[in-house]
Amino acid sequence: MEKMIYAGKAKQMWTTTDEDVLRVVYTNQATALNGKKKTEIEGKGRLNNLISTLIFKYLNAQGVHTHFIKTISNDEELVRKVQIIPLEMVTRNIAAGHFSTRFNIKEGATFVKPIEESYFKSDELDDPFINNSQIFGLKIATEEEIEYMWQVSRKVDQLLTALFASIGLQLVDYKLEFGRLKDGTVILADEFSPDNCRLWDVKSKKHMDKDVFRRNLGDLTTVYKEVLTRLETKLGEGANKWR
Amino acid sequence: MEKMIYAGKAKQMWTTTDEDVLRVVYTNQATALNGKKKTEIEGKGRLNNLISTLIFKYLNAQGVHTHFIKTISNDEELVRKVQIIPLEMVTRNIAAGHFSTRFNIKEGATFVKPIEESYFKSDELDDPFINNSQIFGLKIATEEEIEYMWQVSRKVDQLLTALFASIGLQLVDYKLEFGRLKDGTVILADEFSPDNCRLWDVKSKKHMDKDVFRRNLGDLTTVYKEVLTRLETKLGEGANKWR
Ligand SMILES: Nc1ncnc2c1ncn2[C@@H]1O[C@H](COP(=O)(O)OP(=O)(O)O)[C@@H](O)[C@H]1O
Ligand SMILES: Nc1ncnc2c1ncn2[C@@H]1O[C@H](COP(=O)(O)OP(=O)(O)O)[C@@H](O)[C@H]1O
Ligand SMILES: [Mg+2]
Ligand SMILES: [Mg+2]
Repeated sequence: MEKMIYAGKAKQMWTTTDEDVLRVVYTNQATALNGKKKTEIEGKGRLNNLISTLIFKYLNAQGVHTHFIKTISNDEELVRKVQIIPLEMVTRNIAAGHFSTRFNIKEGATFVKPIEESYFKSDELDDPFINNSQIFGLKIATEEEIEYMWQVSRKVDQLLTALFASIGLQLVDYKLEFGRLKDGTVILADEFSPDNCRLWDVKSKKHMDKDVFRRNLGDLTTVYKEVLTRLETKLGEGANKWR
Repeated sequence: MEKMIYAGKAKQMWTTTDEDVLRVVYTNQATALNGKKKTEIEGKGRLNNLISTLIFKYLNAQGVHTHFIKTISNDEELVRKVQIIPLEMVTRNIAAGHFSTRFNIKEGATFVKPIEESYFKSDELDDPFINNSQIFGLKIATEEEIEYMWQVSRKVDQLLTALFASIGLQLVDYKLEFGRLKDGTVILADEFSPDNCRLWDVKSKKHMDKDVFRRNLGDLTTVYKEVLTRLETKLGEGANKWR
């Protein structure tokens, strides 16, 4: 029997008849401030699922190893089950959000090289910022795994910065999660959606991501729909291509 | 004319007739919680000056390049003027303090390798934790400087862990600061005292450092005096050796 093994802030993870495969259900829940701000937004689960589908298919096609298998409904996909490495691997191409506050750097400032940060995934500890020395000291990941995850993150940055630029969006920053298959191979997991990245419209400079919700800047679904439409036009797939 | 160029939380920095030399005055001010807790403790300036003198003389003798020139009174020393690199370079041999809180690790836990952390020295920003990628992105220090500072920190760790062990004290963690001479050479600067490190008595497990003040565990000067006495006995110098 299928059972739900995890109910997170944005998705549910269900077992399937194949023990190496999970079914992900994208929910309509929106949270900010590490869960302190919470609401239901009709259509959000569907939009994130369809956006993440397009991005993961694109990454798979470009040779990035991901957990993505296939999308099976508007808000469900099948993925390879991994043991998640409890780190949020953040890349910042442009200063924004927490980074700007923490270092008093204007939003929009650029860097010589993208800035890379990791956070320890722990709701209880409030996802603390963590450095490599701490990651090794606490045995959260090995040096090889960290090196590999940043290599993949950098490839993802090149691919997606170019992809979003081609549809008039600046990829400001984003968060990736990785996991280990049974044999220890590390692959890209979780999702890639406007919930976990910042996208700024090149022309209008408008926020096209979850900051719309965090900062009460307008209607989230309108903005996510626009991102999906542009991606579909670019990648030549209808939203229902998964059928 | 001598003038005070900086009044910090624990020391004043004065110019001298030699533009490459500063006079450091250790004050009796004690602060915790980044300045939120503050008080005067008679004798603290003298004790820190004399302890830091012994440590820096020892490090100089062991081939570590430091700013220390000589001690000229109970609470004053002469040092080579540097441009401080605004980073606190922290090494943790044993879990304690902020680290224990942040990662929910019991005080006293040990690591496979010492943990290394840097903090961006900025009172206004509350000395935020910073990683190498951010240090390079914000041009706070170069890759070579960071590599060199950790090399020196590791040498200091070996030397001082052994030194303190020989007088019945565990070197739990400590903070170093470095600076650039006019020609760019990086040297160890600032101080090394129980204000900036944690020392636990091996037998009694008692705190022999500023945690006595931070946690209201007793009289700070009694404890600092004990550290000074043990160091003097070991290093064979009277407290007034500087005269
Ligand atoms: N392929 C996978 N296998 C197992 N777990 C995964 C996989 N992909 C993502 N996860 C985990 O499933 C959960 C997804 O739910 P989500 O709502 O995003 O959770 P969270 O509140 O932790 O962000 C996350 O904990 C994520 O790390
Ligand atoms: N050799 C040196 N040359 C110039 N500045 C120094 C030197 N050694 C230490 N400093 C700086 O002088 C100040 C010492 O005062 P302190 O009370 O410790 O300040 P803080 O409140 O910043 O900790 C610090 O800002 C320290 O970085
Ligand atoms: Mg998540
Ligand atoms: Mg200081």
